[in-house]
Amino acid sequence: MAVLAAIFVTAAGDALGAGAGSEATNASPIYGVTIPDGYRGWKLVAPALEADPLNELRAVVGNSVAIEAYRAGTLPFPDGTVLVKLAWKRVQSPEFEPASVPGAATTVQVMVKDSKKYAATGGWGFGRFVDGKPVDEAQHQTCFACHEARVRGHDHVFTRYAP
Amino acid sequence: MAVLAAIFVTAAGDALGAGAGSEATNASPIYGVTIPDGYRGWKLVAPALEADPLNELRAVVGNSVAIEAYRAGTLPFPDGTVLVKLAWKRVQSPEFEPASVPGAATTVQVMVKDSKKYAATGGWGFGRFVDGKPVDEAQHQTCFACHEARVRGHDHVFTRYAP
Repeated sequence: MAVLAAIFVTAAGDALGAGAGSEATNASPIYGVTIPDGYRGWKLVAPALEADPLNELRAVVGNSVAIEAYRAGTLPFPDGTVLVKLAWKRVQSPEFEPASVPGAATTVQVMVKDSKKYAATGGWGFGRFVDGKPVDEAQHQTCFACHEARVRGHDHVFTRYAP
Repeated sequence: MAVLAAIFVTAAGDALGAGAGSEATNASPIYGVTIPDGYRGWKLVAPALEADPLNELRAVVGNSVAIEAYRAGTLPFPDGTVLVKLAWKRVQSPEFEPASVPGAATTVQVMVKDSKKYAATGGWGFGRFVDGKPVDEAQHQTCFACHEARVRGHDHVFTRYAP
C-alpha cells in the first residue's frame, strides 16, 4: 500500500490522490483522507456563514480538477476532484462595525473524489480535521449520510461556485 | 498614455498595472482603476460577513504580490499589490438550515498599490464596480477617507490574511 500513500503535487500546487494509504498517520478514519498540500493557495469556490452555535465563516476552495468542473458545470465531479472547506470563528471587526471577519481557525474538511475507492459512499472520501488531526470515527460516520440525504442531486456536494 | 493602459498578465493570471490609463472605458473615477483580468482565480485572503442592511458575504482575493506580502507580513504592501473584494447577497441555504451562502453578486471592489501614482491617497487607487461598471465619483470620494481613518496603521487595508 505504500505507493498509494504518495502525494503527487503538480506545478499548480494541487495534491492528487489526497485519499492516502492506510499507513498515513494523519488520515481520516473510514476513508483514509489526508489534508492536501498547498490547499490554502487553491482557488475559491465560495464563502459561507454557519450560524450559531458554531458561528463560523467558511470558505471552500478546490484543486484545479474541481475548479474546472465547477466552471464547466460538470456533474458528477471527475475523479481527482478535491474540495477543502476552511472554517474560522466569526468575530466582530474591531475596525468596521458592520463587518465580521475570521478569528481562530476551527476545522478543515476535505472531500476527495475517487469513484472506485469510495464507490460505497457516492464516490467521495471525507476527512474532518482539527489542528491538523482527524476527528474520531463516530464523527466521520455522519459525513456521507448527511450529504446523501441533502445533496445527492448535486453529486453529494453542498457548495456551488459563487458567481 | 496608451502604453500605460496595457494590462500585463503573468502565467499565474495576475494582472499587473490594474490602474489603467485615462482612456480605459471601465476605469474608476478619480483613480482610473479597472477590474483586473483573472481575479476570480486569485488566492483567498479572507472571507467576511457584512451585516444588514447590505447583508452580504464577501471574499477578498489577491494577486501574487499581495499574497506574498501577506504571508511574509510585509507592510506597507509593495507596489503592484492588487486586492479584489467580491461580494454577494447572503441567502439561506435551501439544503442546510444553519448555513447561508452567496446569492447574486453585488459589487467588486479593487485596491491597487502604486506609491507614486497614488501618493496623495496612501499609495492606493480604489475602484468600486457594479455589473462591471464603476460607480460614480461621489462614491469614490469616500474610499480613502474611511480607509485612512480606520486602518492607516495597516497600510490602509482592512482585510487580514485568514489563518
